[in-house]
Amino acid sequence: MKKYSEMTADELLAEKEALLKEFAEYKNMGLSLDMSRGKPGKDQLDLSMDLLDYTDYIEDGIDLRNYGILDGIPSCKRLFADLLEVEPKNILLGPNASLSIMFDYIAQAYSHGLCGSTPWNDIPGIKFLCPVPGYDRHFTILEYFNIEMVNVPMTNEGPDMDIIEELVKDEKVKGMFCVPKYSNPQGITYSDETVKRIAALKPAAEDFRIIWDNAYCIHDLYEEGDKLLNIFDYLGDYGNEDMVIEVCSTSKMTFPGAGISALAASDNNIADIKKRLNCQTISYDKMNQYRHVRFFVNAGGIKEHMKKHAAILRPKFEMVLAHLESELGGLGIATWFKPRGGYFISLDVMNGCAKRTGELCKEAGVTLTTVGATYPYFKDPNDSNIRIAPSLPPVEELDLAARILCVSVRIACVEKLLG
Amino acid sequence: MKKYSEMTADELLAEKEALLKEFAEYKNMGLSLDMSRGKPGKDQLDLSMDLLDYTDYIEDGIDLRNYGILDGIPSCKRLFADLLEVEPKNILLGPNASLSIMFDYIAQAYSHGLCGSTPWNDIPGIKFLCPVPGYDRHFTILEYFNIEMVNVPMTNEGPDMDIIEELVKDEKVKGMFCVPKYSNPQGITYSDETVKRIAALKPAAEDFRIIWDNAYCIHDLYEEGDKLLNIFDYLGDYGNEDMVIEVCSTSKMTFPGAGISALAASDNNIADIKKRLNCQTISYDKMNQYRHVRFFVNAGGIKEHMKKHAAILRPKFEMVLAHLESELGGLGIATWFKPRGGYFISLDVMNGCAKRTGELCKEAGVTLTTVGATYPYFKDPNDSNIRIAPSLPPVEELDLAARILCVSVRIACVEKLLG
Repeated sequence: MKKYSEMTADELLAEKEALLKEFAEYKNMGLSLDMSRGKPGKDQLDLSMDLLDYTDYIEDGIDLRNYGILDGIPSCKRLFADLLEVEPKNILLGPNASLSIMFDYIAQAYSHGLCGSTPWNDIPGIKFLCPVPGYDRHFTILEYFNIEMVNVPMTNEGPDMDIIEELVKDEKVKGMFCVPKYSNPQGITYSDETVKRIAALKPAAEDFRIIWDNAYCIHDLYEEGDKLLNIFDYLGDYGNEDMVIEVCSTSKMTFPGAGISALAASDNNIADIKKRLNCQTISYDKMNQYRHVRFFVNAGGIKEHMKKHAAILRPKFEMVLAHLESELGGLGIATWFKPRGGYFISLDVMNGCAKRTGELCKEAGVTLTTVGATYPYFKDPNDSNIRIAPSLPPVEELDLAARILCVSVRIACVEKLLG
Repeated sequence: MKKYSEMTADELLAEKEALLKEFAEYKNMGLSLDMSRGKPGKDQLDLSMDLLDYTDYIEDGIDLRNYGILDGIPSCKRLFADLLEVEPKNILLGPNASLSIMFDYIAQAYSHGLCGSTPWNDIPGIKFLCPVPGYDRHFTILEYFNIEMVNVPMTNEGPDMDIIEELVKDEKVKGMFCVPKYSNPQGITYSDETVKRIAALKPAAEDFRIIWDNAYCIHDLYEEGDKLLNIFDYLGDYGNEDMVIEVCSTSKMTFPGAGISALAASDNNIADIKKRLNCQTISYDKMNQYRHVRFFVNAGGIKEHMKKHAAILRPKFEMVLAHLESELGGLGIATWFKPRGGYFISLDVMNGCAKRTGELCKEAGVTLTTVGATYPYFKDPNDSNIRIAPSLPPVEELDLAARILCVSVRIACVEKLLG
């Protein structure tokens, strides 16, 4: 098929007519399809039901059903240490969601400072770097604390490091949110070069912190997954041991909302966070920590389990990508990444056409992530990015949803070109 | 026996000699007994193991294993609404501990203000009222946020309201922590008069908040428990709807650290807290919420379950109280309350003798709550209060621990009198 930009007005009008006819058919079906959030499907949730089978809760003679053990049970700290390739002493187990850890860490910086630094609340005009497109809930945290967000474009190797190296010279720049593996929404894994350049950053702010949200650390779609360097192996070379706070969770391994989160950080940061933690809680849910240890045993067990998720998710990703290829390929109106893991596909359409695409999808009964949400303040400067979450709908529904998405993109672009 | 104050120096010396002999025997036993924290005993934890039996997690067609439902599942909100006698819309379900809710509420006030008020961080010298003796973890939260704590003495009917009514005229006084039923550590339940006077307070600070920590709302030791008025029934009469934030949890109903917490508050406060909550998490552990609903069914189910706890705890409380009566009664060196519920017995010894008692207990292998911890900044002005937690040790150990405590009190007082 011809590129839209090479079509004549008549050709575009004919195309529009054909598309609207197809669109009307979908609309008449009265559908309600959801590609908005990275929710696992029911069959994925069923994979972890054995987790609930354990009935003894004694570890090293300690009754895990009772109060105590602030930073998490030793076996579960070892499990996450194994997964993240750090030492157990550098792990803190958290509540049911890593989002809460991240929120609370920013809250700590805001009210009390980090490792003795000035509380961020006392410094006007502080900023955070946000690789874009990115994860809306990171932006929500920063907006809540009134921290100015500075967009940094993503490349195929991660955020643009030339830009970041410049921006961190501003001492008002206090940190950066990263999803370094299978980034949300693009599914890009930071290259070795990018990880090393991040580890070597020389930020002006001594309490500059990178929230290394490794949400998809082991969420491969294929046998051979992307490899992400362990940034902790490189920080020490540059005296940056305290610069990175890594988080992850079992939300997309076992049960979203009923899992375990964990934080990995330097000795200094762990001690700093524990001071606050000691005022916040007596312990998180140790019974659930223990269940996860029994269920997974070690990082190898997690890897095996994740293959079952991959077997369910892979066909869904491939179906959506096939539709994008066959229905949008060659038209010159859209680009996308082919992620090898994670939970999303990121679609960039012709400038000024993303919101309209979202509206059309909604009209036809397909819910997308709110268009614009992949940018701070919901402001996608080009109005071009759409996040697709293919995990929740069953395959047959997803097939339909992907078709509708593609038609909607095409209509939006034809409309735009016709002016 | 004679009151110590009426003994001659010789009588005191003889008493001391006898006590030290008994103490030496205990010391030789090489014991390790723990009466420090309000931990349930193993037999209490065993009461709730059926909680873990449920394997379906669908409510109203919604898969509770997945993301979503920020404020808690409807059935569990109803359960807590039933328990606290408020409407479900005025309930927010929380994480695994009400302590975290309280910490986070103060954190919210500190960084963002409450319902549009000035953030507390922006007001120098703010204060909180602390009925004393009280719960150390409340004090820890206030100390973390650098909020000045003002002691308010407890009476047999709750905190001294004459003093409170005066203190709240200071607009720097921003709130008060209360454990209104079976207070920690005394086990005092606020009288109807006290609750009504609290509801009718006219604080100068418009964002004055009472954290109504109803930790022992249904934790009766006897069939006929203390009755606490529902303060929400009275707040409206004085335009104080937004003044109280009530919290409770299942920590001492099912599993400490693996339970459900809840918050009850006005519509305004719920909306205010939800704004923050929406940035913090996607949901708390709904599977655990559902398990608790299935296990308890309703407040009546909780009440029945709590009778089983009472059957285990009552003999422990009665044993400690019997020791206090038989070994300290009539000596004029100690007073205590006889709680009809809760988790603690509060013992007030002769001024200047509490710390020494704690040291002696430690020497003989009995761990008490850190003496002084029942007062802000660990400063018991009279050095007289000791919190006893009788729940954890098995009865036979408790028997010994109570004897050792009583001997230690007597030695400390004799020493003091001998100068």
